[in-house]
Amino acid sequence: MKLVIVGGVAGGASAAARARRLSEDAEVVVFERGPDVSFANCGLPYYVGGEIATRDKLLVVTPDRLRERFRLDVRTRSSVEAIDRARKVVRVRDLATGREYEEGYDKLILAPGAAPVRPPLPGIDLPGVFTLRTLQDVDRIKARLDAGVARAVLLGGGFISLELAENLARRGVATTVVEKNDQPLTPFDPEMTTPVVAALAANGVTLRLGDTAEAVESAADGLCVRLKSGLSLPARLVVFGVGVRPENALAVGAGLAVGPRGGVRVNEHMQTSDPDVYAVGDAVEVTDFVTGEPAQVPLAGPANRQGRIAADHALGRPAARYRGTQGTAIVRVFDTVAAITGASEKVLRRAGRAYRKVYVHPAHHAGYYPGAEGMTLKLLFDPAGGKLLGAQAVGGAGVDKRIDVLAVAIQAGLTVFDLEEAELAYAPQFGSAKDPVNMAGFVAAGLLRGDHPQVDAEAALGGYFLLDVRTPAEFAAGHIPGAVNVPVDELRGRLAELPRDRPVAAYCQVGQRGYLATRVLLQAGFRAANVGGGFATYRLHHPGRESSH
Amino acid sequence: MKLVIVGGVAGGASAAARARRLSEDAEVVVFERGPDVSFANCGLPYYVGGEIATRDKLLVVTPDRLRERFRLDVRTRSSVEAIDRARKVVRVRDLATGREYEEGYDKLILAPGAAPVRPPLPGIDLPGVFTLRTLQDVDRIKARLDAGVARAVLLGGGFISLELAENLARRGVATTVVEKNDQPLTPFDPEMTTPVVAALAANGVTLRLGDTAEAVESAADGLCVRLKSGLSLPARLVVFGVGVRPENALAVGAGLAVGPRGGVRVNEHMQTSDPDVYAVGDAVEVTDFVTGEPAQVPLAGPANRQGRIAADHALGRPAARYRGTQGTAIVRVFDTVAAITGASEKVLRRAGRAYRKVYVHPAHHAGYYPGAEGMTLKLLFDPAGGKLLGAQAVGGAGVDKRIDVLAVAIQAGLTVFDLEEAELAYAPQFGSAKDPVNMAGFVAAGLLRGDHPQVDAEAALGGYFLLDVRTPAEFAAGHIPGAVNVPVDELRGRLAELPRDRPVAAYCQVGQRGYLATRVLLQAGFRAANVGGGFATYRLHHPGRESSH
Repeated sequence: MKLVIVGGVAGGASAAARARRLSEDAEVVVFERGPDVSFANCGLPYYVGGEIATRDKLLVVTPDRLRERFRLDVRTRSSVEAIDRARKVVRVRDLATGREYEEGYDKLILAPGAAPVRPPLPGIDLPGVFTLRTLQDVDRIKARLDAGVARAVLLGGGFISLELAENLARRGVATTVVEKNDQPLTPFDPEMTTPVVAALAANGVTLRLGDTAEAVESAADGLCVRLKSGLSLPARLVVFGVGVRPENALAVGAGLAVGPRGGVRVNEHMQTSDPDVYAVGDAVEVTDFVTGEPAQVPLAGPANRQGRIAADHALGRPAARYRGTQGTAIVRVFDTVAAITGASEKVLRRAGRAYRKVYVHPAHHAGYYPGAEGMTLKLLFDPAGGKLLGAQAVGGAGVDKRIDVLAVAIQAGLTVFDLEEAELAYAPQFGSAKDPVNMAGFVAAGLLRGDHPQVDAEAALGGYFLLDVRTPAEFAAGHIPGAVNVPVDELRGRLAELPRDRPVAAYCQVGQRGYLATRVLLQAGFRAANVGGGFATYRLHHPGRESSH
Repeated sequence: MKLVIVGGVAGGASAAARARRLSEDAEVVVFERGPDVSFANCGLPYYVGGEIATRDKLLVVTPDRLRERFRLDVRTRSSVEAIDRARKVVRVRDLATGREYEEGYDKLILAPGAAPVRPPLPGIDLPGVFTLRTLQDVDRIKARLDAGVARAVLLGGGFISLELAENLARRGVATTVVEKNDQPLTPFDPEMTTPVVAALAANGVTLRLGDTAEAVESAADGLCVRLKSGLSLPARLVVFGVGVRPENALAVGAGLAVGPRGGVRVNEHMQTSDPDVYAVGDAVEVTDFVTGEPAQVPLAGPANRQGRIAADHALGRPAARYRGTQGTAIVRVFDTVAAITGASEKVLRRAGRAYRKVYVHPAHHAGYYPGAEGMTLKLLFDPAGGKLLGAQAVGGAGVDKRIDVLAVAIQAGLTVFDLEEAELAYAPQFGSAKDPVNMAGFVAAGLLRGDHPQVDAEAALGGYFLLDVRTPAEFAAGHIPGAVNVPVDELRGRLAELPRDRPVAAYCQVGQRGYLATRVLLQAGFRAANVGGGFATYRLHHPGRESSH
């Protein structure tokens, strides 16, 4: 049995190690175009900023280690140029010598990854213009920085761009991020990125939304990025981070099926349209676990699991199956953390799926213990049975925990009613007797049970009598334009001030007092609903759009 | 509809607020014996130590707030002395005036909590001897401390005792903890408490296991605790934390059914043997979610949920059901964090349940990013289908997250195979592409699939040829007595050195190289097994029992 693997980073390295564990006899050859295998892709921005101090930290496994420990035939700087599926051979070029040769296989696993998109712009090949994907990229960027960079422009507002922006800012580089959409971090719903936008601004990073680069030009002291808006941004460092595209040339050349966005088509065993050829990692089209639609999700965790599954199946374990990708992801931008799992509201809307949503804004641990940090947790769920469809959180400490808990809840097919009952670890340093996950469950379940009519904070609130049930001091500090203030504790005595001829939208800061007010109003015969997630959610949707005395 | 609630802390306060949300018309009376409602029980040790700086932080909700916001008839310092179920009245004593009166009810919810056990020892009522349960307790302890305490003795090595020990140590008090069992934190399996024991020692807290108090005596400069071992410990502060017992006097007096450990018997709707009388919180006997056995689990989260469910059911929602308690709990002792969910190995053994177990020792986030902290994660699961039965973790950062993830996995009935596929949030600050939860799933699933024969680190290893596959330097620093060192990378070339007439137990530091070695040996025809969780697990079971050059 001879297994050939193309690509030695995440999915490829996992497949190779797994194959050896399953079989001491298998011949396993790994071809990697670059000089490194299994490097810490996700650490690159932190090496730029210096938080990861030495380059060797990024080399998770060396080729020698793979050779010695797993008896793998690892050939770096070796480019696989073509697959002859009929003869079951690959054609390989040794990049050091230029020599070309053929290598036969019984089973082939393609793990070539994805390549950064380099749009065909004038000037994209000028010195000082980079992408950030490999150790070689980071070496070049660091060399440029070490030579002195006062200003940088990052094109694209995705995960890696924002991490890089943070690290450049830490080095004192004046950094501008340019993103063509009206929000950064496009896997998130826009309102959930409001705190990230604020964090960038607070830390001196300029974010230009709704704009793109038209050209990079040479300028007196470096480069100049000309934007569609007409703005010209001087910089000595320009990094394109506008997405990646699957490295599918080999698969396409071999006539393997490829999806509309370029991902190699695979079945649940990670087999391509040729059952002896597998594909894994950023190069493949996966199935979205929630929507069931094909998707392109370049993430390290899924790549590793797919590699393992492909090796299992190739080495005779027919039960090995990949269940699809939830798109669980997390990013820290300065002190702000944003994380997501499952479908976003955007995705659900695009897919035409019915959904409901709630927002809660709890503290990450007991408020009475010092250091509690706020977070916003958004839950998307099925209106029929309450099945969880997706979750997003933004805040600081504890965001990662809640998204991981919800990722497993989604994997298990749990409902919002199950979240009410989740029994999570509580001590004052770690959570609350009613954890944010429970709170989100309470609100969502209340909504589905009909206890808790809700109006979305981003909806047109024009038809409602807007009732702010917070304290006068909170009201004075900022409120939804047009709202009338009746504190919740006075509400029962002041019902006569409220209209019975139109619906009342009650709100407080985060939704809890608004919920009680809604319950009071409903039972007193008013038409009433709570503004979901309160003023805190309103502000996420409408940053800067509020009245104050 | 008139609802009377006895007890206004966790379960009682939750029931009362919930009742009001459901019904503006219900008359809701809350009797609380103490002066406070809903105080932060779990924060008391941190107020002693000063981390929680002001007492009012501990008052989560005041009686006035409950009155104003929820229009509840809250009567503090009011002791309910008896229930006349036939007439549906309770007899109440106003502790301020001594006045006694009757109050009728349609539905009654008992939430009296649990009281600290005060063993009938000579001297237990001496000044300077306390329990720690209420704000009044903490006031008394603080007053004593403020008067000057050089030495303290804490009897019982449970959660609150250890938290108090930490806080006393922070105040410079020489503290001894005395625990009658051979481990602290008895809900955990003993080996999982080894790092906690080490943390206490490292921070100057003396822990005496297997000993108990026989008497407290007056001494020249304070008190002296005489132990069964014969030792006498001088102290100016003695705190008993040897457990709590359900406050069941009211229920017993009213002829309601009570379990063998004193907990009030309730059905899944939290109804006692009288369907108009509910009981919730620390006073009730719950069903263990994993074993299905009755259990006594005094935790704040379950108490709150039970209160909510009792209110729902009492106010006409017959579907409200409590699913049982998993016993999810967490404690921080200095920088060491220990957490548990589901059944422990002790509980499974006692219940006669078949189980398997694995240990992993991963870092809490990517090793290449600075600040990674180690943890030990123990998984217990069904040998048949791999269903999760329990999990325990000990370490530092990230322990809480993994236990919460596993708590939800247990709630959902997931298996170790599901854990292999869990898609958790990965960025270098938060996790790894293969999260500790995935790692535990891989090892456990490998065990069940038969890929990964394992011998327990605490087993009698006498029959095995003990093979240490770590580096010579690791071996020299400490190894299992009798082991022979063959580094894994040399193993394939040195198979001739190993015996074929008896089984080989391979081990490395945490189990990964040992797993590869086991795979190599099995495929070369040896009888071989991996020592589960490696030397790190061995050391938890046998602290101090190792050889070194």
